[in-house]
Amino acid sequence: MTPQAPTPAYRRLSVEERRGQLLEAALSLFAHRAPEDVSLDDVAEAAGVSRPLVYRYFPGGKQQLYEAALRSAADELRTCFDEPHEGPLLPRLSRAVDRYLAFVDQHDTGFSALLQGGSVVETSRTTAIVDGVRRAAAEHILSHLGVPEPGPRLRMTIRMWITAVEAASLIWLDEEKQPPLDELRDWLVEQFMAVLEVTSRRDAQTEALVRALAMDL
Amino acid sequence: MTPQAPTPAYRRLSVEERRGQLLEAALSLFAHRAPEDVSLDDVAEAAGVSRPLVYRYFPGGKQQLYEAALRSAADELRTCFDEPHEGPLLPRLSRAVDRYLAFVDQHDTGFSALLQGGSVVETSRTTAIVDGVRRAAAEHILSHLGVPEPGPRLRMTIRMWITAVEAASLIWLDEEKQPPLDELRDWLVEQFMAVLEVTSRRDAQTEALVRALAMDL
Repeated sequence: MTPQAPTPAYRRLSVEERRGQLLEAALSLFAHRAPEDVSLDDVAEAAGVSRPLVYRYFPGGKQQLYEAALRSAADELRTCFDEPHEGPLLPRLSRAVDRYLAFVDQHDTGFSALLQGGSVVETSRTTAIVDGVRRAAAEHILSHLGVPEPGPRLRMTIRMWITAVEAASLIWLDEEKQPPLDELRDWLVEQFMAVLEVTSRRDAQTEALVRALAMDL
Repeated sequence: MTPQAPTPAYRRLSVEERRGQLLEAALSLFAHRAPEDVSLDDVAEAAGVSRPLVYRYFPGGKQQLYEAALRSAADELRTCFDEPHEGPLLPRLSRAVDRYLAFVDQHDTGFSALLQGGSVVETSRTTAIVDGVRRAAAEHILSHLGVPEPGPRLRMTIRMWITAVEAASLIWLDEEKQPPLDELRDWLVEQFMAVLEVTSRRDAQTEALVRALAMDL
């Protein structure tokens, strides 16, 4: 028997299906290589289609494909934060951090390339997409904490912790994913409590929150 | 009397003096405007020289001038970390953070533009300069802590705190420099102690360090 030809990719797909298929191929490449190491030929090959077909769907070429893949990854990452508003708070945070770290694990090279900056495909648009995810993470946390009008100190604490989590993710990828995911997750959640406690010494709103969290456990 | 003409800038300067003068003019512009809002004409005007003269010193134009200004700012920032290795540790950290925040205060717009990413002048070289400063900060802290062979958990904790400090600086600039610098400084130093304590629960090296810090106070 001859090796199987990439015919499945040439079956009739709707525009949306085809677009989704190309995006998926692009995302899997961008997840594990730096953007400069992915060519449109690679994407065409991974999707089992011709290069002109890729251009038909993404006339802006690699930059457009990268941004579309990034948007799709950002949507996926946002779903990591989805967590029912029930049960004790810290386990909710712990589950969300667990899903986030699994996402980082699955998109390792692309995640590093994107967040380390200075990449050829980085633009104000890609920065805006990443910032959107950071903001979504902060809003999720605040909504779970049940603080309708968070003051500047509480907001700053949460945004600092989110940045520290990002830094930890990059170091973790750099250090061959050590410590193990579950240990890193617990450590990050403990840091969340610790920085909230520090802020509670100078902010009444955070103090009330820390008291509530202690009773919640 | 007629307004003073910009003659002082045209006096005979050595190559190094002239270069320094142009860099200083560029730095003062890049400190308070986004890079895309600074033109070579602006730099020439601020230095009181002609545009061709700027090009003679920086044939690579704005990008080269920006990178040179960034290098000079990075050197200045590194001097903020210089602190004698004597006396209790936390006050040393507090003084270094104080100088760092004063630097952020003085270079506000440029600092934000640089670190928020997606800027037109951002390249792998500018990213490397910024990363060099981050690494220098981590090495300074480790040398003051007197840990000759820091393990991965201690290193990660310190790098996460440095990133959190950076995030706090950006938020601080965004929020019209509130809370006041000295309050932000104390809060950041308290967070440093808090995250070290969290790490000490899972790392013997950090535990010994936290014990030593407690006796040092």
